[in-house]
Amino acid sequence: MGRLTVRRPVLRLNPDGTTRSRPDTLAAEEPLEIRVGGTPLSVTMRTPGHDVELAHGFLLTEGVVGSRDDIASARYCDSVDDEGRNTYNVLDIDLAPGVAPPDVSVERNFYTTSSCGVCGKASLDAVRLKTRHSPAGDPLRIRREVLLELPDRLRERQKVFGSTGGLHAAGLFDADGELLAAREDVGRHNAVDKVLGRMLMDDRIPAGGTVLMVSGRASFELVQKAVMAGVPMLAAVSAPSSLAVELADEAGMTLVGFLRGATGNVYTGQERLEP
Amino acid sequence: MGRLTVRRPVLRLNPDGTTRSRPDTLAAEEPLEIRVGGTPLSVTMRTPGHDVELAHGFLLTEGVVGSRDDIASARYCDSVDDEGRNTYNVLDIDLAPGVAPPDVSVERNFYTTSSCGVCGKASLDAVRLKTRHSPAGDPLRIRREVLLELPDRLRERQKVFGSTGGLHAAGLFDADGELLAAREDVGRHNAVDKVLGRMLMDDRIPAGGTVLMVSGRASFELVQKAVMAGVPMLAAVSAPSSLAVELADEAGMTLVGFLRGATGNVYTGQERLEP
Repeated sequence: MGRLTVRRPVLRLNPDGTTRSRPDTLAAEEPLEIRVGGTPLSVTMRTPGHDVELAHGFLLTEGVVGSRDDIASARYCDSVDDEGRNTYNVLDIDLAPGVAPPDVSVERNFYTTSSCGVCGKASLDAVRLKTRHSPAGDPLRIRREVLLELPDRLRERQKVFGSTGGLHAAGLFDADGELLAAREDVGRHNAVDKVLGRMLMDDRIPAGGTVLMVSGRASFELVQKAVMAGVPMLAAVSAPSSLAVELADEAGMTLVGFLRGATGNVYTGQERLEP
Repeated sequence: MGRLTVRRPVLRLNPDGTTRSRPDTLAAEEPLEIRVGGTPLSVTMRTPGHDVELAHGFLLTEGVVGSRDDIASARYCDSVDDEGRNTYNVLDIDLAPGVAPPDVSVERNFYTTSSCGVCGKASLDAVRLKTRHSPAGDPLRIRREVLLELPDRLRERQKVFGSTGGLHAAGLFDADGELLAAREDVGRHNAVDKVLGRMLMDDRIPAGGTVLMVSGRASFELVQKAVMAGVPMLAAVSAPSSLAVELADEAGMTLVGFLRGATGNVYTGQERLEP
């Protein structure tokens, strides 16, 4: 647990043409199997630590749960490695009574039909989850200077990236730029799930009035996760994809990309930005 | 097809505090549903184009096929959007007679057991696929100066990144630094699958004697894909994860990270590097 980094020997190629053997610090990556009521649901490659938050966030952003009370308990299985030590790589979640377990059938992601005529639309629909917490109409307003500071504020909290260069970061801020939660992970979707899972555990979902800042690009998947948590604004250091912009537009979310230095691009929901 | 970029209006925040509305070019992202013999297997968010290569590479790196002859045909479904145009977002693959279809049961990724005692190891084993094309023992040798040039050579081929800043790139090179194939995609695993799928279609799998260069980080997943194709060296511009190094070591693959400028880190298989 908490094995954020691993030390390994490395052969360094120096600029002067020489080589040198030295230890290097790597971002840890291990599989986490998430089970619900004992049934395997997902295996994600993640940086160990904050696993309970990760599972909470994953179940929230996959639409399995909508509030803290939907989850009764979370515990690590007694899984052991070759030396008999607990791996802490299998987490079992028990849902509260009355909460429908996730559909783990093969068809869960597919609109089953024998006709090819609708399958294109169906497959797009399948990746669009239904949210209980729409960010549309969220009254968040954020001042331009506060928004422009968020990348630096997130970077200050990136403890591991400095030593490994290998982690994505996500941070949730309020309209005054105050940090609510920040997490790092080898997978950017995991970093987001950990932050949103923290909010779920604190009973702060839907996360109205917040900005989710991510260190990399804004993909469809990240916009979808923010939508599922009711976050009204997503800001990314790098580029958004076309479908990320399309979904943000549809969902009434503000999407900002290339937020770096004194500049940024507002793709949707510009009414939430104040001078 | 070939919709690599999409134009959208954007509100630009200028460094001088002003704003300006202008069109922006985005990397296209759309879902591709891959079917095998009519049965849905996977939906991946990808940049449209080179979809047949992507499907070939995906089936190769997931262990469904091992050579070109294992695939009989690939065709787009007649899937149409609201305006009746083909979406080109559903691709159906027919396997050759005698090739076992992929196991799409729920248990495919899980070692089913009621005992928690082995599940940690089992879940790790589940993400480690069995390759038919081990890179161990591959006689590849590459000169240091050739290796150090690969990032620039890949960048020269990154046509779309320059306009969108939103795409990952992967390129396969031979020991002389000659490019065999390069592809871009919003998903780095897709860029790799497209390159390896091209090699499969050209009947060049196992891809002995090659170096796979990727624009971002080296994750466990990318090392695994390279192993499945018999690629003996993976080089990344950014950091590898701990599990990526562990798998490369096990598989007899050379793994290079932080390859940029005149420097790089060789994590495993340093015998393939010549002065």
